[in-house]
Amino acid sequence: METKAQVLYDFTAEPGNNELSVREGETITLTNQNVGGGWIEAKNSRGEVGLVPEDYIEVCSGFRKWLLQRRHAVCVYSTFQKLGTSNGNDPWAVFDNNASGGVSNNWAAQPEGTETGKTSSNAWHSGGHVHPQAYQGAGAEDDEWDEEWDDVKSSGGYAESEAGEGGAINRGGAHVRIYTVFQGGEVGPVWAYPDYQLDCVVADPKKGSKMYGLKSYIEYQVTPTTTNKPVNHRYKHFDWLYERLLDKFGSAIPIPCLPDKQVTGRFEEEFIKMRMERLQGWMSRMCRHPVISSSEVFQLFLSYKDEKDWKTGKRKAEKDETVGVMIFSTIEPEGLPDLDLTEVEQKCEQFNRFTRAMDDGVKDLLTVGNEHWKRCTGPLPKEYQRIGKAFQNLSSVFTSSGYEGEAALTDALTAAGKTYEDIAQMVAEQPKKDLHFLMETNNEYKGLLGCFPDTIGVHKAAIEKVKEGDKLVATGKITTSEKTAMSKRASTMSYALQAEMNHFHSNRIYDYNRVMQQYLEQQVKFYEMIAEKLRNAHSQFTTM
Amino acid sequence: METKAQVLYDFTAEPGNNELSVREGETITLTNQNVGGGWIEAKNSRGEVGLVPEDYIEVCSGFRKWLLQRRHAVCVYSTFQKLGTSNGNDPWAVFDNNASGGVSNNWAAQPEGTETGKTSSNAWHSGGHVHPQAYQGAGAEDDEWDEEWDDVKSSGGYAESEAGEGGAINRGGAHVRIYTVFQGGEVGPVWAYPDYQLDCVVADPKKGSKMYGLKSYIEYQVTPTTTNKPVNHRYKHFDWLYERLLDKFGSAIPIPCLPDKQVTGRFEEEFIKMRMERLQGWMSRMCRHPVISSSEVFQLFLSYKDEKDWKTGKRKAEKDETVGVMIFSTIEPEGLPDLDLTEVEQKCEQFNRFTRAMDDGVKDLLTVGNEHWKRCTGPLPKEYQRIGKAFQNLSSVFTSSGYEGEAALTDALTAAGKTYEDIAQMVAEQPKKDLHFLMETNNEYKGLLGCFPDTIGVHKAAIEKVKEGDKLVATGKITTSEKTAMSKRASTMSYALQAEMNHFHSNRIYDYNRVMQQYLEQQVKFYEMIAEKLRNAHSQFTTM
Repeated sequence: METKAQVLYDFTAEPGNNELSVREGETITLTNQNVGGGWIEAKNSRGEVGLVPEDYIEVCSGFRKWLLQRRHAVCVYSTFQKLGTSNGNDPWAVFDNNASGGVSNNWAAQPEGTETGKTSSNAWHSGGHVHPQAYQGAGAEDDEWDEEWDDVKSSGGYAESEAGEGGAINRGGAHVRIYTVFQGGEVGPVWAYPDYQLDCVVADPKKGSKMYGLKSYIEYQVTPTTTNKPVNHRYKHFDWLYERLLDKFGSAIPIPCLPDKQVTGRFEEEFIKMRMERLQGWMSRMCRHPVISSSEVFQLFLSYKDEKDWKTGKRKAEKDETVGVMIFSTIEPEGLPDLDLTEVEQKCEQFNRFTRAMDDGVKDLLTVGNEHWKRCTGPLPKEYQRIGKAFQNLSSVFTSSGYEGEAALTDALTAAGKTYEDIAQMVAEQPKKDLHFLMETNNEYKGLLGCFPDTIGVHKAAIEKVKEGDKLVATGKITTSEKTAMSKRASTMSYALQAEMNHFHSNRIYDYNRVMQQYLEQQVKFYEMIAEKLRNAHSQFTTM
Repeated sequence: METKAQVLYDFTAEPGNNELSVREGETITLTNQNVGGGWIEAKNSRGEVGLVPEDYIEVCSGFRKWLLQRRHAVCVYSTFQKLGTSNGNDPWAVFDNNASGGVSNNWAAQPEGTETGKTSSNAWHSGGHVHPQAYQGAGAEDDEWDEEWDDVKSSGGYAESEAGEGGAINRGGAHVRIYTVFQGGEVGPVWAYPDYQLDCVVADPKKGSKMYGLKSYIEYQVTPTTTNKPVNHRYKHFDWLYERLLDKFGSAIPIPCLPDKQVTGRFEEEFIKMRMERLQGWMSRMCRHPVISSSEVFQLFLSYKDEKDWKTGKRKAEKDETVGVMIFSTIEPEGLPDLDLTEVEQKCEQFNRFTRAMDDGVKDLLTVGNEHWKRCTGPLPKEYQRIGKAFQNLSSVFTSSGYEGEAALTDALTAAGKTYEDIAQMVAEQPKKDLHFLMETNNEYKGLLGCFPDTIGVHKAAIEKVKEGDKLVATGKITTSEKTAMSKRASTMSYALQAEMNHFHSNRIYDYNRVMQQYLEQQVKFYEMIAEKLRNAHSQFTTM
């Protein structure tokens, strides 16, 4: 059977290297997947055959493909769109239209199977055997989808083990972790946080090579604070992890994009440092999330024992079927009453307004920051340099006067000139010391916020479905208890969203507190240093 | 007899006010000089009659007219020319061409009259009765001019009183002050400085009116440190003083232009303050000059007893005949040996190089300063304001989150935003506190330096004439002793130039020391204040 794949990023072949140039969105046919060294052989629609980096293509379909494409569009949007202007790529459009896909939004809306499944009030009709294919067809009508769901449902299913012992659901022999949401005081529903806050250090980038040295790559050392034992990962592994997390948690938790891929300058020192810094930021954010950090796939990534362990775990993770909206079946609002539809809708709207407003605020700050960066590294230091040169120039003209006894003035004037040249350099270097972190944090948040429309969209669609509940009952399509179960699911989704928002809020407060402190601290140092330099320059002039 | 006048500055008539619009350089006929209130009635070439401000026109001819026109060209050049670019108005051209005028340059080159004058070795053939008319005709050949000179010479002359008792020359009954140049240590020839350093305070601008309140003007109070008795002067009086000083000392001493006239906004507070500040700067510079400050006309301006005293003194000053190059006849290099031609030439070249280089340096600094001013009052504060707004905006978005317990962050973020708005205002206001004085001082020096080409040109022309001395002796046009006297005069001019340059240098060192100190002091305060404000903003964020 032919394997088709979709190209995720533009790739330009190096001449004479047996490579194939491909464009984002292009569909190619894989002709040899066993080339090794991170490459596969593929054929394009014009019949041309060549090597393509395997992390530039995606063999996927269904929900995962849809989500990846959406997410990729958001990433591309986040990265390339001119800040402050909106265009057709607006990631919020998915929410406004309430039309795109609808594919990932139907879990909560499904009538509970009462005939084939167990009648336990906690029973979930899961997509245990729902192949990602089931989510295919973004344009599929709900009813069509319902049929598929029913098909799937009839072919299998699972029942929750009572009271979720050990926080796991027995599903066909596998243990499924249960993520608990409970009442967290004033702030409302929160995730169950682990006692120990996981973190990791991404460091020590090393160049490695494959294909007899023909292809080289960078391997980063990732050391979790738990084991303190480093593991090595290439960028493509991080990307693999991102895709697994997106598959598994994307409907409930915003999974921010990885830092951009970059074809050229892959080994340029600056770029590697920047990518490492951003991978560190991304990993730390994932570590901080109680649901993500406790997931099997994330733990595997951080602390696999050896190559065999990694490969086994990888295969297992790729076969994980608790993906898409199924994640909600593993979320348990502990001791929380069911919400009614109005409350669910209100929460949803509130979060939507907030994330939208923050998205605007963050983009505004990024626009301003970008302009400030440009001024600080461009015209401003040039101007200080020119002031410095003008003083020094005047000093050397004065020196040529032949007039006795003005050495004190000319020396002081030269020193003042050099001071302004020093200031020019300080100004140019300062953004790296303060603005950089402010921008990075805001960029991270822009990425995170860009994921919310999807997350919120899932809820909005579920709400719409529940709203039809009465009609469905009236027309005998579902029973009253099925309608009740639908509402319960919507309630669970809402609790999950609230827990996620509270997680977001607490992280946001921590992050902005930290970054603002860091920014202002560096700004203070900067202006104090300038004042100090000028004080020195001033002291060299003679008091007359 | 019809009195013609030349228009010095553009003037636009106010409609319905019986005024006449005139253009700079236009020649008009005075039809009524007794209108009063600072106005005269005049007719233009098209026969139109109307009122024109009397300080906008100049009834003059000969050397004075030439010098005024030249100086006015320099002033206009200084004021309007785009800095850093040269055009046809380059004031240095007069020196390069060595062609313009030649009218003021012939005093030193005149053969000494040995037949009609006294034979004292110190005898000066003066233009005692040389009417300014004698300097008319910028294109006149030297020989023609010589004839005029001879005519004048035969009609009078004066002899120096031996050893210059009381520093005055008896000339037709009048006492002429003698300005002494002597050896001032390492620096070379210097003016004789008075024991007491004169200064004055220009303050308290008051609005007055004439013509039954139809026309109003501003009168400034000028208080000399000697008498401490204030006298009142309008701008036109300053302008009158400027013209007298230019007439009398312009060949030997650079007399900087007065601050620009301005037709519109004459009573606008800002403008009056600025003009007063600049008149103060100009007056202080004149006070500091030993030759100018001790002159009768300057003393009259500073300390006339009453209206009658002022009017009498004014008339006397206007009739002063020791003007133009004649000023050199009142300069005595005391105890200094005669310089030979090579030395004179060298000094002249050296000063020319220096003033030219400094002129470039000053203009460069002004260009840079102007750009910095623009940035500091335009885009830079706007940017800080936008940063401030972005922080405050984010703060209000955060407030809308509904999340409990982030008041500390949002308050701190708002405070940080306000701090950047404060900084924006500080940045915008700072140039007035520091750059302003740096710019004013450099503008003053630009004006001063713009006068040097004339001053140096006078010397250069004298040198050229002395160079022809041998030829003139060989062709029997002058005697050897006449040639010796010519050289002696060139030597005196060179000493005067050296004294003036040394005066310029010592003032320059004082001024730049002072202004740089002032500038840097304010800059230090500025950056310290910013650091302090940011430190406050920083302290409001919670340490986590």
